[in-house]
Amino acid sequence: MYKINENYLKLPGSYLFSTIGKKVNEFTAANPEKKIIRLGIGDVTLPLAPAVIDRMHKAVDEMSSPETFKGYAPDLGYEFLREAIAVNDFKTRGVDIALDEIFISDGAKSDSGNIGDIFDIDNKIAVCDPVYPVYVDTNAMSGRTGEYLPELGKWSNVIYMPCTAETNFAPELPKERPDIIYLCFPNNPTGSTINKDELQKWVDYALKVGAVIIYDAAYEAYISEEDVPHTIYECEGAKACAIELRSFSKNAGFTGTRLGFTVIPKELKCGDVTLNSLWARRHGTKFNGAPYIIQAAGAAVYTEEGKKQTQEQIAYYMNNAKVIRDGLASAGYTVSGGVNAPYIWLKTPEKMTSWDFFDYLLQDANVVGTPGSGFGPSGEGYFRLTAFGSYENTVEAIERIKKL
Amino acid sequence: MYKINENYLKLPGSYLFSTIGKKVNEFTAANPEKKIIRLGIGDVTLPLAPAVIDRMHKAVDEMSSPETFKGYAPDLGYEFLREAIAVNDFKTRGVDIALDEIFISDGAKSDSGNIGDIFDIDNKIAVCDPVYPVYVDTNAMSGRTGEYLPELGKWSNVIYMPCTAETNFAPELPKERPDIIYLCFPNNPTGSTINKDELQKWVDYALKVGAVIIYDAAYEAYISEEDVPHTIYECEGAKACAIELRSFSKNAGFTGTRLGFTVIPKELKCGDVTLNSLWARRHGTKFNGAPYIIQAAGAAVYTEEGKKQTQEQIAYYMNNAKVIRDGLASAGYTVSGGVNAPYIWLKTPEKMTSWDFFDYLLQDANVVGTPGSGFGPSGEGYFRLTAFGSYENTVEAIERIKKL
Repeated sequence: MYKINENYLKLPGSYLFSTIGKKVNEFTAANPEKKIIRLGIGDVTLPLAPAVIDRMHKAVDEMSSPETFKGYAPDLGYEFLREAIAVNDFKTRGVDIALDEIFISDGAKSDSGNIGDIFDIDNKIAVCDPVYPVYVDTNAMSGRTGEYLPELGKWSNVIYMPCTAETNFAPELPKERPDIIYLCFPNNPTGSTINKDELQKWVDYALKVGAVIIYDAAYEAYISEEDVPHTIYECEGAKACAIELRSFSKNAGFTGTRLGFTVIPKELKCGDVTLNSLWARRHGTKFNGAPYIIQAAGAAVYTEEGKKQTQEQIAYYMNNAKVIRDGLASAGYTVSGGVNAPYIWLKTPEKMTSWDFFDYLLQDANVVGTPGSGFGPSGEGYFRLTAFGSYENTVEAIERIKKL
Repeated sequence: MYKINENYLKLPGSYLFSTIGKKVNEFTAANPEKKIIRLGIGDVTLPLAPAVIDRMHKAVDEMSSPETFKGYAPDLGYEFLREAIAVNDFKTRGVDIALDEIFISDGAKSDSGNIGDIFDIDNKIAVCDPVYPVYVDTNAMSGRTGEYLPELGKWSNVIYMPCTAETNFAPELPKERPDIIYLCFPNNPTGSTINKDELQKWVDYALKVGAVIIYDAAYEAYISEEDVPHTIYECEGAKACAIELRSFSKNAGFTGTRLGFTVIPKELKCGDVTLNSLWARRHGTKFNGAPYIIQAAGAAVYTEEGKKQTQEQIAYYMNNAKVIRDGLASAGYTVSGGVNAPYIWLKTPEKMTSWDFFDYLLQDANVVGTPGSGFGPSGEGYFRLTAFGSYENTVEAIERIKKL
């Protein structure tokens, strides 16, 4: 008899967004006249930029003619896109990334899950707490995280690095030595970030202890402060210890369009083996490229028009973030994030649990957010609001919260 | 120090298409005046059907307006597409597949590689020989195949099922008991297939020995004969032992557009655990859906216009297949395939090796095909030609071969 991967059975239910959905549905059924405003899930709402739309129409037309039709894409992705990335995301920051160090994918979620394939099961991971659940869940699926301890909300073989008000929402170097360190800055869910000197400490630490950093920079386009690094490769030595994940989801509204990329410098070696060669092998064997139409759309993000238009979108969301942050602060809440990220992280008032505050906000303000405890035990007592709603809804939601 | 997945280092180089490319480039450099005709790689050449193009333009426009913009897709894929699949691919064949048994993906290559994630490492796989390399390579990457034995061109812990003229290019039930059986009909690379009674024997066998069948039906649209099953679920009991993989790459020319799906019936259980629930968990955790635009394009394939147009494309390719098959037969070659599949499998003349025949065809007819030995040891002495070229090139290639 065949055997299943028993690690899947250890996973706790992914209750967060389904529980939120259930609670909202129940409330709506009981209160059909109330207008709910959702500032919970991190999904964009603005339509794709005109430059992207134009390029996609052209690409669709190319697929309609035998002369310009595109079959299988090159393994690493189209060179026109990798070239635009190398120039705009790295060269402009003083970082040289070669075209064969860039791997185009269907998004950072796939990449952050799949990257584990190239590592041995016997590696100890370190994650921030709270954290984007995919890092931990995908490692759990491959058997790297030990046993789940429900009473703690933690896995037995994972190093958790608390990120709370006490740590200024940044992780501290762990006492126990990790093999693989997941970092995400600007951070989901806290919206916090760290400056270049602080990130350099992580690079130095990884080089010292022989760890690899998986650096998720999906929100780099939201950085507004000068000394916050846009790529980990701004730090000295990072090419020898870090993989960077990037996404078009939040910088260009591609959550439903699907495009991302992973950077693996050839300097990154385990003994004689470059991780670049391992990922190239995985990419070529288990993936067949992002659609040509979508890769063309991605390249349009880097045109002058595309940059201008997507920056306007980001400015729109960041204005929402300011509305939320300032509004909550003036109402007496303790807030962080929202300056270099589209997420605002607030401390629940009067020591309410995250879920109690969720219920309170839903019942009394008809506003939906995300309980911080859903992202990890150190998220307890915190709450996430996102800046991805419309300006009008965002203003109204904050007015309602202020009136409570 | 972190550790890499050492299984990757066991993989032999993927020399097949790179060696072909190198040989063709060398020939072209030495003979710039010669016109090469490529009937090697299984990539389509006809542009997307007008109904698909129209729907994609509409979907692009939907992404340009806040009212119709689409963010993250539903985990399993859009219901409009799963509904079209359930009705057209299964209901019409007398098979009931529920919408939550269909998982939309970015293609059958990803699915056939990723499906291994839900199974324990300690499962023994059985594959046809010759075979689509992704099945074996992805199992090797996860450590399921033992050691590679270069002198045999085989892995130590894989059951190989020879498919040669002696077996009528169909596998025989293996003597050793497998846990996971990969079947692909119509077959890549041989172009052969089996009838419903023969496939029923595999289903009965899997149920008897407690194996699961991964059934790759990527080429089902090319079936022309009556008694050849279009889905494994036409066989009694298959829902309790088989996962089916489907692709839009060859039936609608989506090789560069990327869309596929996996069917996992809820009857398929290992003890109390449905494989459907495991795949749902993987799909939701390590994947974020195919792009809305592409899912909309996929649904257009199932409209009346879309069906008519894609059937015309398939007829075009199958006419090429007939040209190749009949032409080679009349020239004295022993050929198979090409009746229910876009691949023609020929026996090399005079006991030439597959690579010797490759060189001979390249040098003397300037035609590029694929050496059968590249798909496995039992492919030695065979050669694959594909029907995906233009009609004109196909006719000319066969004329050249006939003149040899």
